Amino acid sequence: MSKERLYLYDTTLRDGQQTQGVQFSTAEKQQIAQTLDRLGLDYIEGGWPGANPTDSAFFDAAPDTRATMTAFGMTKRAGRSAENDDVLAAVMNAGTPAVCLVGKTHDFHVTTALNITLEENLENIARSVEHLVAQGREALFDAEHFFDGYKANPGYALECLKAAHDAGARWIVLCDTNGGTLPEEVGRITAAVIDAGIPGDHLGIHTHNDTGNAVASSLAAIDAGARQVQGTLNGLGERCGNANLCTLIPTLLLKEPYAGAYETGISMEALADLTRASRLLDDILNRVPVKSAPYVGASAFAHKAGLHASAILKDPATYEHIDPALVGNTRIIPMSNQAGQSNLRRRLAEAGLEVEKGDSALARILDEIKAREAQGYSYDTAQASFELVARKVLGQLPHFFEVKRYKVTVERRKNRRDRMVSLSEAVVVVKIGDQKMLSVSESHDEAGNDQGPVNALSKALAKDLGPYQKHIDDIRLVDFKVRITQGGTEAVTRVIIDSEDSEGHRWSTVGVSPNIVDASFEALLDAINWKLIRDGATA
Amino acid sequence: MSKERLYLYDTTLRDGQQTQGVQFSTAEKQQIAQTLDRLGLDYIEGGWPGANPTDSAFFDAAPDTRATMTAFGMTKRAGRSAENDDVLAAVMNAGTPAVCLVGKTHDFHVTTALNITLEENLENIARSVEHLVAQGREALFDAEHFFDGYKANPGYALECLKAAHDAGARWIVLCDTNGGTLPEEVGRITAAVIDAGIPGDHLGIHTHNDTGNAVASSLAAIDAGARQVQGTLNGLGERCGNANLCTLIPTLLLKEPYAGAYETGISMEALADLTRASRLLDDILNRVPVKSAPYVGASAFAHKAGLHASAILKDPATYEHIDPALVGNTRIIPMSNQAGQSNLRRRLAEAGLEVEKGDSALARILDEIKAREAQGYSYDTAQASFELVARKVLGQLPHFFEVKRYKVTVERRKNRRDRMVSLSEAVVVVKIGDQKMLSVSESHDEAGNDQGPVNALSKALAKDLGPYQKHIDDIRLVDFKVRITQGGTEAVTRVIIDSEDSEGHRWSTVGVSPNIVDASFEALLDAINWKLIRDGATA
Repeated sequence: MSKERLYLYDTTLRDGQQTQGVQFSTAEKQQIAQTLDRLGLDYIEGGWPGANPTDSAFFDAAPDTRATMTAFGMTKRAGRSAENDDVLAAVMNAGTPAVCLVGKTHDFHVTTALNITLEENLENIARSVEHLVAQGREALFDAEHFFDGYKANPGYALECLKAAHDAGARWIVLCDTNGGTLPEEVGRITAAVIDAGIPGDHLGIHTHNDTGNAVASSLAAIDAGARQVQGTLNGLGERCGNANLCTLIPTLLLKEPYAGAYETGISMEALADLTRASRLLDDILNRVPVKSAPYVGASAFAHKAGLHASAILKDPATYEHIDPALVGNTRIIPMSNQAGQSNLRRRLAEAGLEVEKGDSALARILDEIKAREAQGYSYDTAQASFELVARKVLGQLPHFFEVKRYKVTVERRKNRRDRMVSLSEAVVVVKIGDQKMLSVSESHDEAGNDQGPVNALSKALAKDLGPYQKHIDDIRLVDFKVRITQGGTEAVTRVIIDSEDSEGHRWSTVGVSPNIVDASFEALLDAINWKLIRDGATA
Repeated sequence: MSKERLYLYDTTLRDGQQTQGVQFSTAEKQQIAQTLDRLGLDYIEGGWPGANPTDSAFFDAAPDTRATMTAFGMTKRAGRSAENDDVLAAVMNAGTPAVCLVGKTHDFHVTTALNITLEENLENIARSVEHLVAQGREALFDAEHFFDGYKANPGYALECLKAAHDAGARWIVLCDTNGGTLPEEVGRITAAVIDAGIPGDHLGIHTHNDTGNAVASSLAAIDAGARQVQGTLNGLGERCGNANLCTLIPTLLLKEPYAGAYETGISMEALADLTRASRLLDDILNRVPVKSAPYVGASAFAHKAGLHASAILKDPATYEHIDPALVGNTRIIPMSNQAGQSNLRRRLAEAGLEVEKGDSALARILDEIKAREAQGYSYDTAQASFELVARKVLGQLPHFFEVKRYKVTVERRKNRRDRMVSLSEAVVVVKIGDQKMLSVSESHDEAGNDQGPVNALSKALAKDLGPYQKHIDDIRLVDFKVRITQGGTEAVTRVIIDSEDSEGHRWSTVGVSPNIVDASFEALLDAINWKLIRDGATA
């Protein structure tokens, strides 16, 4: 039997822009629109033409998309015709094939916020939608506060929807604007709307996450018969955000009853790009991706518990609800003091260290890791440092060089031009064999701005390592994370450093100390030693 | 009509500890347990005694709670009696009034993961629960993979539950271990369990957020008749986390049909502390609180859209589903629009700065704040630094002293006993009037351990400020948070410092620079200047 068509409507560029701290540039909007189009969304809501310069500029140069580009606006105001409403005109002038107009359906808002009669509001909805249709646009009516409105005055709320429907709206979108309606209620009220004569294949659902149920409420509306779902990438949106399409899409494509019942514009190939699309948006916004995000989060398939990890090794289905590859994500079995020995052996194998099952070294490595975690170390991400610890216990850690001492100075004073400037300088003394190397380095970027003590140390350390120089010349410090954590009873600083080489290999190392400079230096040393081992340098 | 009792079970200290990157210390577990107890949770699952040193240490010194302290473990293994299972014995030895044992209910796991017969597994469940009851403990059976097990083999999955129930388990907890079951299915299967003879007031629900439906599935199970809900603060937990109690609790207490139908152990007074409890956990873990978190997030009641913000001023109910004060959260109307200015005036008033409505200074302060936020500053928490910025714009910032220069040195070398040790030293030159003060300080704690450059700077700075000394002698640096963030196009370091005086007043200041030492110094200076202003010191 043939599947029913379910339409996906993205509003990342409009409602998503309401996220606190989010402000898209026009170029960013274009990049996001192309990403959404590649995914296969049916509609892309680009913004509100005329409401702000960025949105207007976006529509002036909107990318050519397979998806139906949609402009957002509001129904005409009372006391003027749709033709003569300048706000509506600005929206029409964007020239998009589809237009979505928000209007009131909650009597309280009509009288309190708009200060017009309920009759006038119905008139505004009908005339505005007729205007869109007359202009040959696909018309969407965004029923603001519909669920609250229906609870307060079901008769009037339904009249508003009928006004839009009878005027020729292709879609009537039921909005839970304040996000307070629970899934069961969303489903029940959506069914009531269909009973009242608005066909489900003309109904859309638009939810917010204020009770953590945006996704569940969207599914409840689909179960009741709605056939358009609105949301945003990564659940961007005002307050707690909109329904997260990065969560909804895999659920609709991979899980029953949805996968078997509905067809969307999204292919399995596109689905495998979902994680990348999610991370791309975070890159654009310079946000740290949410590790625990369903399907696309870095931790979504991370197995920490020892029992789980060992079962996963036997059969991933034991603790995974889907194959991470389907959404372009990957499985992680991190080290931690919860970890079992099988987990440990797998991780050692990744480092090229084969240790027999039951070998007493496994217990010794585990104990060492646990002891260090008690001091504040964390090896969930710092795989390179974990390898060095394991090698040390196994007696397989080459001794390349020894740091005899170092000294870092940060000075802040007036310069010639009487401006306060900083200067960081580091001296590192290293012994290789019986040869002593003394290196000194300042820290500044191309512009001459001081980059601080850690940068200075890293430069001095990498300046002259004699025979090993060729291995470390291409190491770049790409990320630097600092956490104040508990080491036993004292607060200590944990530094995690991500390094990269010229071939784009990345590795993470960790250092811990009450002194942030020492902690950083320890992580820097690990980064270099790990690289030397990986390059097969000889001690 | 009287309400039904609904029990809340927290597993932050056990399942929450499975979060990638989370590693509680024993002291932290005790602090969290007390927070949970103050909230009024019915059960606190403290961990798995014997599984790791931290958990064992926690139970050795578990705080005295009103909540039922619960130890977690697994059912006895095959081929030995419950009495002779050392793993189970370690759990019993924690001596908690309640014990929760996880066991298999999915035939596939029994044969694949455990490699035992279905009969043996039923035996393990029954004998283990009987053992708990015989020892006078409240017994909970954690039915792992129950929903997947029921879908695969309903008969056997139900037999497992009956085995635990007939053996005297107070609670049978239905777990969606892999998090892949959708709410409608959770509700349907929970109802089937009740039809099969396990009473709802003996049923618990334990969900995970892998499809973003953990909260909705918990509600669906309650709708079907389950009367115990398990979850974690802030939704901590393996992979995508557990059901978030910070979301579930307000929904159960404030929203129908739940508020009218059920009674929990949580009072409205405790509910008003929920946001604080959520932030406290993030503080302990030094995690950035999720701004968009339902109810407790910093953005949960932030109104950015201009139309919304102005309507909110007329009547908050227009765009808020609950009153933020009920959960101890606050409304935010971004300063970036008209409505924002009244918000800014409120915040200035808190600092004792009265600025007339419409005063052009308001716009100038907003511009300055925006410009600094673009450089990487953040004033969400750093209220003291915000006040200093505002005073500067208003020309009300006294000039107490000037820092002419400073120099910090961190040196690491071998000491007499041939051990590598660090020493941090700071020199600060300050000018007060025409008097020049030169102070130097080392950094170490009572034990003589080096505490690093920031500590040294703070000591040197506070060593001699002449006439102001009496005001700063009692300042203590109580917290220090570091984040790498974006300042314009460059990555910069943002440091937030919490200071405290002898009367227990706390204030937060912020500093930003590519150089972590400079950023810290800026925050330290703000902390001192703010204290001098608050004490009414005269420049």
